[in-house]
Amino acid sequence: MVTYAQRETDLTISGESHADSRATPEPWRPGTVYLVGAGPGDPDLITRKGLRLLRAADVVVYDRLIAPELLDEARPDTELIFVGKGPGCHTMPQEDINRLLVAHGRRGRAVVRLKGGDPFVFGRGGEEAEALVAAGVPFEVVPGVSSAVAVPAYAGIPVTHRGHAPLMTVVTGHEGEGSSESPPVDWDALAKLGGTVVIMMGLSALPRLTRRLIEGGMAPETPAAVIAQGTTQRQRVVTGTLADIATRAAAERVQSPAITVVGAVAGLSERLAWFEAAPLAWKE
Amino acid sequence: MVTYAQRETDLTISGESHADSRATPEPWRPGTVYLVGAGPGDPDLITRKGLRLLRAADVVVYDRLIAPELLDEARPDTELIFVGKGPGCHTMPQEDINRLLVAHGRRGRAVVRLKGGDPFVFGRGGEEAEALVAAGVPFEVVPGVSSAVAVPAYAGIPVTHRGHAPLMTVVTGHEGEGSSESPPVDWDALAKLGGTVVIMMGLSALPRLTRRLIEGGMAPETPAAVIAQGTTQRQRVVTGTLADIATRAAAERVQSPAITVVGAVAGLSERLAWFEAAPLAWKE
Repeated sequence: MVTYAQRETDLTISGESHADSRATPEPWRPGTVYLVGAGPGDPDLITRKGLRLLRAADVVVYDRLIAPELLDEARPDTELIFVGKGPGCHTMPQEDINRLLVAHGRRGRAVVRLKGGDPFVFGRGGEEAEALVAAGVPFEVVPGVSSAVAVPAYAGIPVTHRGHAPLMTVVTGHEGEGSSESPPVDWDALAKLGGTVVIMMGLSALPRLTRRLIEGGMAPETPAAVIAQGTTQRQRVVTGTLADIATRAAAERVQSPAITVVGAVAGLSERLAWFEAAPLAWKE
Repeated sequence: MVTYAQRETDLTISGESHADSRATPEPWRPGTVYLVGAGPGDPDLITRKGLRLLRAADVVVYDRLIAPELLDEARPDTELIFVGKGPGCHTMPQEDINRLLVAHGRRGRAVVRLKGGDPFVFGRGGEEAEALVAAGVPFEVVPGVSSAVAVPAYAGIPVTHRGHAPLMTVVTGHEGEGSSESPPVDWDALAKLGGTVVIMMGLSALPRLTRRLIEGGMAPETPAAVIAQGTTQRQRVVTGTLADIATRAAAERVQSPAITVVGAVAGLSERLAWFEAAPLAWKE
């Protein structure tokens, strides 16, 4: 099958352009659910489109991992619905979130489903999209800056790097923990593949996952880094090797949410660190 | 090593907040080079921080794959420097781009290095960061929405999906083409790993790469999709299987830039397509 984007006009150019200063109305469709990526934690990394929709929304359904400052962008009369709690704590079941989105969409509202990072990178946005399609509720995806790339970047780690990493793999550290529907990860193949491995979440599983990579043949001395609270003012970076990163992270008592990077690029972290180096008061 | 983000104040909150309407100055540092991700093609997917820096920049050094509308955001007196041409055409050597960034940074200017997608996902931003560190020029990374995730999303493909894909790998299709410094990709291990495989660029190499994945043991009937000019009004999506996607893409004469997705999630494309379905004139 071949499909074309058939729209002739550009629907997505912001009215904020310097070149085009017409006052355009907020471009949103009633009864539509927008699956919006909030970005990785730094509230400044939300997209222009995501921010505009957030400011126009009637309802915002949000997760634990979004930057709280973003909620201040919503109108005072916007209904804010929190559906995610901390790891191990109770969270609204995905099926209930799906039903909530469908119900608000059917009431003709502009619904923003605000998710940490990108909606389709371990964000379960695919399930929400499927539920909306099944219910006949229009939706759009507004991709976000993924934590898988941005959190390493804030720690001075380019996930791909010429001469070091011709590929990157992003895997969830929660694999195998209550997600029995998903096929298991072949850690041996992942160890053999090499390149950059980004493990999302799963700090508690880190001793087991790093051991499996070593058993699969990845060199124990491969550089590794754990980044906790990445892209926020509370960011912490612990560096080491595949063999000792789990022990080091535990010794430093780093807390979730955290992302682990394994691969040669993790060795660049200290040299390329820029976030901690930025002066306190360049803003004025 | 453990590092902390030591800044107590939040430097990155935009002055655009509804909750905080103080007129804050543009937050940029003179003599700093900002490695900014422009996003995947839709100019509305640039981040708030990237847009603010673009509007404040003295110099913008930009690539071929950025949305041209974004350049209209720069001040009329901003120096715009184009450094990237089409595939196969002459491009400014990376070493010259590095020198250009260092030179403008040393002149005390606010320099935005505007790159398609994210600077660290096959964007050679790591090399630019290394050159800036070596020269003592301050830099910051402003991550962008990566084409690796957003282009599939605009084609109705969630790169991860519960029950289908517990991991994703992003690989460059240009591997082996003049990048002899990079270690080769182990296509057998990649085929064995499974999950979602996103091949960036490399349309001409597609027959070879799909054959290598099949030879490595990936099922020929694995769903696949090629998305050309993704997230733009000229987006085209060709769907098929790992066995026939290269032939189908050639028959449809799709053009670069294109991204190929291989994996069960590619089979969701037709059902979850939303970009083509969006009405022409909901904007008003």
